[in-house]
Amino acid sequence: MSTTVSAYVAESATAPLFKSTIERRDVGPHDVAFDIKFSGICHSDLHTVKAEWGEPNYPVVPGHEIAGVVTEVGSEVTKYKVGDHVGVGCFIDSCRECDNCQAGLQQYCTGEYGMHGTYNSTERDGSPTYGGYSTAIVVDENYVLRIPDSIPLDKAAPLLCAGITLYSPLRHWNAGPGKKVAIVGLGGLGHMGVKLAHAMGAQVTVLSQSLKKMEDGLRLGADEYYATGDPDTFTKLAGKFDLILNTVSANINMADYLNLLAVDGTLVELGIPEHPMPVPVFPLAGGRRSLSGSMIGGIPETQEMLDFCAEHGVTPEIEVIEASYVNEAYERMLSSDVRYRFVIDIATL
Amino acid sequence: MSTTVSAYVAESATAPLFKSTIERRDVGPHDVAFDIKFSGICHSDLHTVKAEWGEPNYPVVPGHEIAGVVTEVGSEVTKYKVGDHVGVGCFIDSCRECDNCQAGLQQYCTGEYGMHGTYNSTERDGSPTYGGYSTAIVVDENYVLRIPDSIPLDKAAPLLCAGITLYSPLRHWNAGPGKKVAIVGLGGLGHMGVKLAHAMGAQVTVLSQSLKKMEDGLRLGADEYYATGDPDTFTKLAGKFDLILNTVSANINMADYLNLLAVDGTLVELGIPEHPMPVPVFPLAGGRRSLSGSMIGGIPETQEMLDFCAEHGVTPEIEVIEASYVNEAYERMLSSDVRYRFVIDIATL
Repeated sequence: MSTTVSAYVAESATAPLFKSTIERRDVGPHDVAFDIKFSGICHSDLHTVKAEWGEPNYPVVPGHEIAGVVTEVGSEVTKYKVGDHVGVGCFIDSCRECDNCQAGLQQYCTGEYGMHGTYNSTERDGSPTYGGYSTAIVVDENYVLRIPDSIPLDKAAPLLCAGITLYSPLRHWNAGPGKKVAIVGLGGLGHMGVKLAHAMGAQVTVLSQSLKKMEDGLRLGADEYYATGDPDTFTKLAGKFDLILNTVSANINMADYLNLLAVDGTLVELGIPEHPMPVPVFPLAGGRRSLSGSMIGGIPETQEMLDFCAEHGVTPEIEVIEASYVNEAYERMLSSDVRYRFVIDIATL
Repeated sequence: MSTTVSAYVAESATAPLFKSTIERRDVGPHDVAFDIKFSGICHSDLHTVKAEWGEPNYPVVPGHEIAGVVTEVGSEVTKYKVGDHVGVGCFIDSCRECDNCQAGLQQYCTGEYGMHGTYNSTERDGSPTYGGYSTAIVVDENYVLRIPDSIPLDKAAPLLCAGITLYSPLRHWNAGPGKKVAIVGLGGLGHMGVKLAHAMGAQVTVLSQSLKKMEDGLRLGADEYYATGDPDTFTKLAGKFDLILNTVSANINMADYLNLLAVDGTLVELGIPEHPMPVPVFPLAGGRRSLSGSMIGGIPETQEMLDFCAEHGVTPEIEVIEASYVNEAYERMLSSDVRYRFVIDIATL
């Protein structure tokens, strides 16, 4: 038994996405079913459907920034009820038993079952997972987030990936009053970094290729804004930052960026460049600096992030689009022509 | 005015060191003069005299693991008196004003004056600094360490560089009971890492090219010992360590080693490989791991290390040599034929 729902589907790396249907499982005892209202578009969606991260399991229904309204809950569900505003992020299950799962760090699940993605992965029964470019979804309640009432669902969607991807490292490396934080790149991820770091009370600097988006950056909460295309930037800001979050997936000149860190500072990679990065050791050893990485966040921290955003009025800058615009939106993302996140209005699907 | 003292001197990258004389300044109000009794031989000495870290300022008198007995103190000196056992490590001065100097992290001095090395650097008056392969030295009391009575001076010498190089990162990254620490390489640095981490209560694993020194490693305090030449090692130990200290200056396969870290684990580089290391980002982001570096330690922490070693009976394994054996010792170091540190008996100079 299952329910047929509409979805936008990729069937190959080269063909455009098109409207089709997929099956959603019946609601099990621990499941929450919800109507998807909005689904954000993440660069990962594009990497996956274009097979840039390896051949995916077509058909792919992308989307892991999902916000909607509960329509049905299983007999054992205690956390949600019909009508609740809920969301799902990058994963819908994990082993639940390893140390990391037990600690609420499901994103780093090391169990044999592993973290299971919201799309291009599998359910417990082996059937494929399909993401948020669809009209409804069924997910175990333990992997569902509560969206606070004060956050509109269209603006809540990008928090589930872009939001938590920045929130988690900002918290882990103690961004807050007195801390100097730099955000490299002002895109879908970066603009959330600026808003969140500012809301946490840190002093925020944007490091962007050019000064084109400077006005935006300052409006979003940055205290300073520098162009990385200007070599003077690296001289002027040497030794300044406690924390640098790099949202740019391309290889950057590590010596330049590591030298921007103060003693004991950390540069955190949030994108995954295709090739290993050449890292000189002297800037690390000469200031006890660290190069680190971080990947989304666990379920408890994602809920904490949503509550933080509600409390501090932090929401992404979005452009709401119709479902049929998805392929064009991908093209515009590739040319960085979006301020700052596309969100599909699922009512148009 | 000055005092002429005997020293072993390098005058070019290719010629052997030879016995000669140098001048030591008169004792100023804040200075401590001491007779050098023992001087350890560090790989840095060899790198410097052979111009592998750039052309040094010849003549070079190497040696920054210096232990001796105070012979004279300046009029304002309060910390030391004639007859005290004292030591000097890798630096003899720094700006004293920057945040790092103020915090006792003189090794990361960011002031314009900077950290000034024990040799191949300059004194405040611009005259060259000469290291420990000599019979006496004069150093500002603030850059002199007290050697506890229970540590023989020959065994104290290597603590001033090899000891603090390992002690500082072990402390900074909280090695102790319940922590799994791996030491990569069992040489002059590595063997101190094993002893110190064991004394701190951590669970210690040696990762060495082969199992040749396994018996030694276990005797020195390691709980486990694995050969990195065996690819199974990297499968078997995946995700195991909270902290890995790499004492090997050559480039290692970063993906292999980073994957040995648990979530939130840190790999610390203590040597400086000649070329940038290719670092894949996925092992960092996929477990919030860090690649870091560390460089010796500040004055307060070096004193803390000496006191810790006295309290826990931690001393290096040394081979005491005559001064005239220096060039041969360098050859043997290059072929890793030393267990585990050469120390020059300065009475033979």
